[in-house]
Amino acid sequence: MEHNCIFCKIVKGEIPCSKVYEDDLVLAFMDIAPINKGHILIVPKKHYLSLTSVPAEYLEAMMKIAPTIAQCAVREIDGDAFNLHLSNGQCAGQVVPHVHLHVIPRKATDGFNFGWRALTYEEGTEKDELAEAIATRIEKKLAE
Amino acid sequence: MEHNCIFCKIVKGEIPCSKVYEDDLVLAFMDIAPINKGHILIVPKKHYLSLTSVPAEYLEAMMKIAPTIAQCAVREIDGDAFNLHLSNGQCAGQVVPHVHLHVIPRKATDGFNFGWRALTYEEGTEKDELAEAIATRIEKKLAE
Repeated sequence: MEHNCIFCKIVKGEIPCSKVYEDDLVLAFMDIAPINKGHILIVPKKHYLSLTSVPAEYLEAMMKIAPTIAQCAVREIDGDAFNLHLSNGQCAGQVVPHVHLHVIPRKATDGFNFGWRALTYEEGTEKDELAEAIATRIEKKLAE
Repeated sequence: MEHNCIFCKIVKGEIPCSKVYEDDLVLAFMDIAPINKGHILIVPKKHYLSLTSVPAEYLEAMMKIAPTIAQCAVREIDGDAFNLHLSNGQCAGQVVPHVHLHVIPRKATDGFNFGWRALTYEEGTEKDELAEAIATRIEKKLAE
């Protein structure tokens, strides 16, 4: 429990939420400023600012329940599809400093898009070299 | 293995990729049309069109490795943050019909944003009623 964290207060029941699911590790409730109605947040019940600090059991619990929550939200709003989205760090769009996975039901007619863009790699080895450098970091990190 | 699925062909090694990580259940490789350089896709090594069909062990494996992959990509591009994103269904932006989790390293200076929008619920019980309806569906689904 982080003293001033709004999601910790929701988990403790000190601030109300519109709950849709709860188990030992995670809580899921309605986002109050939704991309579409039915937009839900899945949060670990313990405070973590960054996903990189979240223990495997919480990560697994969040992801294991996400498709079920998403499917039920989609059905309830008579939707067609869904997005999962997680913003980690301020410049990625993280506003509340407690890890949260967005579950966003989508409709073909919802008039929303994520403004995707596609950069290109230079011809040659740029992409492969970057992949190799990242792969090396991952290997080292997993060996720690 | 789905006959015409590009990601199944990548998993089988029939189409090359710039691999960053692999284990028994998942493969991670560079997105060829990245939002930012270092953008990676994590895919289950078995073919699933929809996240709602993916067995728990694959979901857990994808999510367990995601923070490590993200952190290493962020460090390698000297970034500041990251997004995870999953598009499930055509109108949610799913292009390749094989489940894939985007790992997108972000920089404060990358000039990108997801064009987030915030709708509002009607005053009164709209949000709570929707939450309750979704909660009931989830409960039924989990009891199946």
